[in-house]
Amino acid sequence: MFDGRIIKSLLALNGVSGSVQDILSWIRQRNQDVHVAVNLVDFDDLQHWSFDNKTKNLKHDTGLFFAVEGIKVRINTDHEIIWSQRIINQPEIGYLGILAKEIDGVFYFLLQAKIEPGNVNNVQLSPTLQATRSNYNQAHGGRRPVFLEYFQKSTVKQLLLDQLQSEQGGSFLRKRNRNMIVVVEGDVSLSPDFRWLTLGQIQALMQFDNIVNMDTRTVLSGLKLVDGFGKTTFYEVNKFFADHKFHGDVEMFFFSELSLVGYKTIDEILFWLSELKSKYELQVKSIPLNEVDEWVITRSEVYREDKRFFKVVAAKIEIQNREVQTWGQPMIQPMQEGLCAFIAKKINGIIHFLVQAKIECGNFDVVEMAPTVQCLTGNYKDGYLYTPDFLDYVLDASEDMIILNTLQSEEGGRFFHEQNRYIIVKADSGFCVDVPENYQWLTLGQLKEFLRYNNYLNIQARSLLAALNYTKGINE
Amino acid sequence: MFDGRIIKSLLALNGVSGSVQDILSWIRQRNQDVHVAVNLVDFDDLQHWSFDNKTKNLKHDTGLFFAVEGIKVRINTDHEIIWSQRIINQPEIGYLGILAKEIDGVFYFLLQAKIEPGNVNNVQLSPTLQATRSNYNQAHGGRRPVFLEYFQKSTVKQLLLDQLQSEQGGSFLRKRNRNMIVVVEGDVSLSPDFRWLTLGQIQALMQFDNIVNMDTRTVLSGLKLVDGFGKTTFYEVNKFFADHKFHGDVEMFFFSELSLVGYKTIDEILFWLSELKSKYELQVKSIPLNEVDEWVITRSEVYREDKRFFKVVAAKIEIQNREVQTWGQPMIQPMQEGLCAFIAKKINGIIHFLVQAKIECGNFDVVEMAPTVQCLTGNYKDGYLYTPDFLDYVLDASEDMIILNTLQSEEGGRFFHEQNRYIIVKADSGFCVDVPENYQWLTLGQLKEFLRYNNYLNIQARSLLAALNYTKGINE
Repeated sequence: MFDGRIIKSLLALNGVSGSVQDILSWIRQRNQDVHVAVNLVDFDDLQHWSFDNKTKNLKHDTGLFFAVEGIKVRINTDHEIIWSQRIINQPEIGYLGILAKEIDGVFYFLLQAKIEPGNVNNVQLSPTLQATRSNYNQAHGGRRPVFLEYFQKSTVKQLLLDQLQSEQGGSFLRKRNRNMIVVVEGDVSLSPDFRWLTLGQIQALMQFDNIVNMDTRTVLSGLKLVDGFGKTTFYEVNKFFADHKFHGDVEMFFFSELSLVGYKTIDEILFWLSELKSKYELQVKSIPLNEVDEWVITRSEVYREDKRFFKVVAAKIEIQNREVQTWGQPMIQPMQEGLCAFIAKKINGIIHFLVQAKIECGNFDVVEMAPTVQCLTGNYKDGYLYTPDFLDYVLDASEDMIILNTLQSEEGGRFFHEQNRYIIVKADSGFCVDVPENYQWLTLGQLKEFLRYNNYLNIQARSLLAALNYTKGINE
Repeated sequence: MFDGRIIKSLLALNGVSGSVQDILSWIRQRNQDVHVAVNLVDFDDLQHWSFDNKTKNLKHDTGLFFAVEGIKVRINTDHEIIWSQRIINQPEIGYLGILAKEIDGVFYFLLQAKIEPGNVNNVQLSPTLQATRSNYNQAHGGRRPVFLEYFQKSTVKQLLLDQLQSEQGGSFLRKRNRNMIVVVEGDVSLSPDFRWLTLGQIQALMQFDNIVNMDTRTVLSGLKLVDGFGKTTFYEVNKFFADHKFHGDVEMFFFSELSLVGYKTIDEILFWLSELKSKYELQVKSIPLNEVDEWVITRSEVYREDKRFFKVVAAKIEIQNREVQTWGQPMIQPMQEGLCAFIAKKINGIIHFLVQAKIECGNFDVVEMAPTVQCLTGNYKDGYLYTPDFLDYVLDASEDMIILNTLQSEEGGRFFHEQNRYIIVKADSGFCVDVPENYQWLTLGQLKEFLRYNNYLNIQARSLLAALNYTKGINE
């Protein structure tokens, strides 16, 4: 039975933690209260981290956490492409877990005002639990993560979501996290870093730059708004909308989410992916970091000769409210800002999103579905490498066609000051439905269906979906 | 609209190629007509194949086809398990394609009476096209595979099926094939090796030992019988059954296939898999073959010191009707016969299959869903290693509880004389619905749904599903 619990949470802009402004004030306050100092240093100054004598791989003394290594990539399609690059190898599956709870008939999600060393603005809203296996096995000798038991001991009936989803395939080698939402009943005791927020509040906060962190965005992206625990029919949703006096634009996205058949069927999309995964034969081989071409290793940086893409740096970190308060670690610092954009278009009355099948060397399964445009701005600004399809359309979009336009951070535990621009634009009526073979139109329902089966949507696409405000409509 | 085309094909035991007996005669005739000689020789006698001087990996001079290498496996759950073993590395995705065609309102599938060097009885029924990338790029300098263009140039509207499915995770490193069924119209010119068969005929032939090869079985396992191209409702199927005077046992499996919700929901099964994939941290590292523990390399064999599992041998092959007629290659020869068995049980009136989440070192994604029992008989017969759960139940089943019991061959292009026993037994009413945490009850509809998304069901489970005769009922 459809009870609209998730939709009610989406519509609630005020809740047990006050208004959106109250939450912003709380984040500001946490920023002032907690002492943070992050300084870039030489690699020699990092305790417990070192370059391996033989391979020059950068790793922790225990072999745990993560390592910076090299890979050789070979893509064999009509012609052969071969390159080598550095990659982060972190084979552990970590928890990204959010507790949910019904309070006065509305669903709330427990977020944490958490500082990560790489965050541009220190505090961002993180999941209830964010822990690698090394973390929760206390490999660093720190405190045991709070709320861990809620996720380790959850029963299947408590689960709104339990998915293994990918991280950036350009930076991580087949890395995945376990994205969970666990529904609890009864009292949960909270430290001052934690607050219960409605989905509407979290979505409103995603319209601001760098407030909701990447891990929160990926977990929430999997949530179906009109499904909840059971099956939902158009009739039930229509009735819910009528009862609540919703109409027009508000309903638009909901109906797209209910559409499992769109311009293409799920089977046709699966067949399209099978063909592309077969066509692009991707082979990735681990190699020592010192065998990666065109990379320079200095006392304090590992970077490409042409200073493009990113560099590896060393950071010394002091943060007051973490399991371990002082530590050093390598971080990835981008050399360019990135852009991720979806183009959305009404086809036969239903909103569709233009998805790109993108091959990235760290992908778990050759291609994942990515935003329409996903690129580094430096690369297109000076015409380096290539001009991505549909980039001009996104950059030239007029204000009234833009549904979303924010800066969002990548994971602040690994990436130093990395933020990317996230955009959703609507296509005008002249926008052609026929697209190149690597692109496909999907409804929201189809996108959410693929999310259930893991490793189909990449993290950039998931980030955009999480920030999509269903209550802001599209008019053609 | 439901038109029952696939069901009609299932029910047709006579067709354009005659009766089941006629097809068996044709296979016997092909066996007599085609000259075959397979002899085991020394590795030195294999042209183009050699052990690498440094690693002892066994490979083709071109680096193509496949290689026998070593892997080191580490499974990190409550305790750590580490071992090393040999594995076949064949990173190419090959085609397993079947052409389908409607003749007089009934669907037919084009199979080939094909000899593979490892087949115990030489000729088995293979897909229309069975070709690795090395094959169809003609790396061996042979003829171009016939019918290749039908699959390379197929449009999405012609596809009944296009899936990337796994091979044996215990023998192959992340190997996958592209399983396709392409519907054609118009005349197709056939050599004497090819015949159009109905689904009913193919299923009848699967009740015999070693007639339908593994590749045909994996392709057909993905076919939904009651779905066809579109959506199907219980009402439509009921009407179809009433029109055709079906009843009772015949309908049983069809209704299980229509049930996407069973004892568990799809989401609950996905959550169960996410938990197990997170729990069993699987790390697989390539190592040289000469660093694999407890293996012996002689002039003519590579085997384990204790002579268990399998050995690698060298075969010299002469076959008359292939692209290349004489060649040598390494093959895998089993030391023990295997057993794959499903237990099926009616739960709340719907047939469910008891599935095991099985971790195998070559798996694409940690665990795949496997039959209730999947083991080597030598291992349980003398109590070596372990006694698998539910094994006794399967071995002690009385004749009237057995739905399927045949010997089927593994892929004869790689495996030398490997055949395994495939069994489906029904559970009596006393069989407990509560099962250990690695097991789960799934309906046929759920199993077929997971098949769509690739790498969820292992090849042994798919083989059993393909051989399941829906028209043989279960009575409790």
